[in-house]
Amino acid sequence: MPESSARPRVVILGAGFGGLECARALARAPLEVTILDRQNHHLFQPLLYQVATAALSPGDIAWPVRAIFRGRPDVTVLMATATGVDTQARLLRTAEGLDIPYDMLVLATGATHSYFGRDEWARDAPGLKTIEDARAIRRRLLLAFERAEVASDPDLRRRLLTFVVIGGGPTGVELAGAMVELARKTVAGEFRRMDPRATRVVLVEAGPRILPAFPEELSLYAHRALERMGVQVLTGTRVTGVDEAGVQCGEERIAASTVVWAAGVTASPAAGWIEAERDRAGRLRVAPDLTVPGQPAILAVGDTASVVDAKGRPVPGTAPAAKQMGRHAARVIAARVSGRPAPGAFRYRHHGDLATIGRRAAVVSLDRVRLTGWIGWWFWGIAHVWYLIGFRSRVVVSFEWLWSYLTFQRGARLISDPAPAPPAAQEAQLPATMEQARRRA
Amino acid sequence: MPESSARPRVVILGAGFGGLECARALARAPLEVTILDRQNHHLFQPLLYQVATAALSPGDIAWPVRAIFRGRPDVTVLMATATGVDTQARLLRTAEGLDIPYDMLVLATGATHSYFGRDEWARDAPGLKTIEDARAIRRRLLLAFERAEVASDPDLRRRLLTFVVIGGGPTGVELAGAMVELARKTVAGEFRRMDPRATRVVLVEAGPRILPAFPEELSLYAHRALERMGVQVLTGTRVTGVDEAGVQCGEERIAASTVVWAAGVTASPAAGWIEAERDRAGRLRVAPDLTVPGQPAILAVGDTASVVDAKGRPVPGTAPAAKQMGRHAARVIAARVSGRPAPGAFRYRHHGDLATIGRRAAVVSLDRVRLTGWIGWWFWGIAHVWYLIGFRSRVVVSFEWLWSYLTFQRGARLISDPAPAPPAAQEAQLPATMEQARRRA
Repeated sequence: MPESSARPRVVILGAGFGGLECARALARAPLEVTILDRQNHHLFQPLLYQVATAALSPGDIAWPVRAIFRGRPDVTVLMATATGVDTQARLLRTAEGLDIPYDMLVLATGATHSYFGRDEWARDAPGLKTIEDARAIRRRLLLAFERAEVASDPDLRRRLLTFVVIGGGPTGVELAGAMVELARKTVAGEFRRMDPRATRVVLVEAGPRILPAFPEELSLYAHRALERMGVQVLTGTRVTGVDEAGVQCGEERIAASTVVWAAGVTASPAAGWIEAERDRAGRLRVAPDLTVPGQPAILAVGDTASVVDAKGRPVPGTAPAAKQMGRHAARVIAARVSGRPAPGAFRYRHHGDLATIGRRAAVVSLDRVRLTGWIGWWFWGIAHVWYLIGFRSRVVVSFEWLWSYLTFQRGARLISDPAPAPPAAQEAQLPATMEQARRRA
Repeated sequence: MPESSARPRVVILGAGFGGLECARALARAPLEVTILDRQNHHLFQPLLYQVATAALSPGDIAWPVRAIFRGRPDVTVLMATATGVDTQARLLRTAEGLDIPYDMLVLATGATHSYFGRDEWARDAPGLKTIEDARAIRRRLLLAFERAEVASDPDLRRRLLTFVVIGGGPTGVELAGAMVELARKTVAGEFRRMDPRATRVVLVEAGPRILPAFPEELSLYAHRALERMGVQVLTGTRVTGVDEAGVQCGEERIAASTVVWAAGVTASPAAGWIEAERDRAGRLRVAPDLTVPGQPAILAVGDTASVVDAKGRPVPGTAPAAKQMGRHAARVIAARVSGRPAPGAFRYRHHGDLATIGRRAAVVSLDRVRLTGWIGWWFWGIAHVWYLIGFRSRVVVSFEWLWSYLTFQRGARLISDPAPAPPAAQEAQLPATMEQARRRA
């Protein structure tokens, strides 16, 4: 930090959709802005499932935060891990030993997976929030096929070729659709000792229908479309156990090597650093202008904030909502430093819900329009390319999609992470594990 | 493996340039081919330095081996780790517990880094052979800038902004050039607390000149071009020590946070599984037809084989040489199984040497032609795009290069690997380390 600065210092914690948009919207204000993230990149999370299923490279949907603010001398970008806030001294503390003074602080630290108190499931059912998560899931999926090809035990092979996705929201639906396409279209025909088309993909949803945020007819369409593609959709099914050999749903046991968690999120720990009321998901209950009650120098946006819209409904934890809050927070800050009247309450505008299911199938729910099939899929694709940052990513992602569409191939089918435990050891253990699993079931 | 097979079984160990080319060249032979690699992908190593310096994504230069042989029902691809050869029983043993019977075996396991007996240097001076290596080097480089931005101690900052490349062959030259461009062009202007243009890049070569395989005038051109770009080139300088705080070259100490090893390679351990004479680099001294003396069922190609050309000079450890050997091995095998006369001795054809230095600068040494500057750079670029596999990679790599050329940006500036040790801890330790370093020097 400059030792002394005449301009008010705004510190934004988190370079996700909310934090990034807030820093962008502060472009013309006479401020010193610092944006802090423990990653060096902003991530376009809506397409992360495509990294997890080998369609896109991490670099296609992630941008260095400092490159985004290259032309903004008023913005300092720091890659650092915040550890706490001293609201008295107005300091943000970091693991790097740097204390960052602020006049106004924006908390935009997002959400993380919630296992509803069963954190021990995290090891065997990883969630999908970061590039590391996506790469780990990609590795599990691709290794499952490779191990099935060398496996001799048919039970083991069946377990390796069973993928379970827990949670029927947009991420779960998109993952399940992409997994079944990976197995039946992309890698089919590339194995000689087993047929990857035998792969079983199961989507488990505790509620009565998948995509609960969508109108019922679109949920039904998505359900049927997934089943037609070969996904087994289990609604009204609660997961009661997850271990290295599979998933338990009450009486039913699903032996599976790859399980992905897309069921619940909770606010990141930063929300707990501030003395203020929080909701069930750990989000700060903010005032209508997004400031934290009792802490006028602190605002919260995105998944860190609990807000309701004009009709009293909770604002969803989506990228558009986070961006709208980031822009509103910037307006509040700009008004305050320039002594202009405050912009008033945040008003969420819901533009619609989108989810892709697979090749030529997506569901789109706008204000007055509902789209499915081909046209929904085009709408979904164009909307996502539109929201990417910069010319390069738009060209590369569009090209990768065109190529995948024409060839059924995927551009990033790499198993390249630190060597996993030797599969021989796993195979040797398996009979015991399977036996345990059966006993438990 | 099919339990019994009327066709002779050829097993190729390694899906690098040599192994891949051998399998491809066996397309029309009445054989059962199995190609085995511990990775799931073939890697275009000549462009790996661009992944290490954030210009390309791993997926741009790596292809799943089984996708390459999709249309070849005679080829079985296995991702497995070979552990030994039983030459009596003609079995290749794997860590997965699978024994693979062969009638003919091709060893194409390539090379790995050689630290000339100082393996303890590997931790602080990683080499560049795999995607993991490239990602680890990329992480070190990008983290160095990030840590320099938060560092308060000027000595620490200087050390963080010093990168050393050991070895002045093509890989070392390409890395050093790309590193200085990363610092002075790509990230310059993106930091507020330090200036990345202060980055020092040092290229250390023990011999009298860099690029020793090239004509002397091209070495001199490359030397001068690197210096003009800002690289400090130290020829005739032997490294005597490497530790976490830097590099020792006799009396001289270079405090550096990032050190890359591009100095020596040795044949992979597989060469040692066979009872046969090996050269100083651990490569099998093969007969003129590439079979292993005394083991007519085993051939060695690429960096696993020690061969001389028609003039008695050793065949270099390059991709074109490995591919030529792979094709020759396929000819030997095809002739043997069909009872045709053997194709005779392998004859290496040297087409030339290429190395890029940086933006608009490369050196190309062909039979009668020597190119430098702009025209060498174009030649280098076109040649490399030409040798990539498939339409998709050619389009993506060409586009990434064009975009980088126009914007000075790089498409894959991600720090996305497992969280490193907290930099605070490192910083706290540093004075001691620096002190030790000074005492040692």
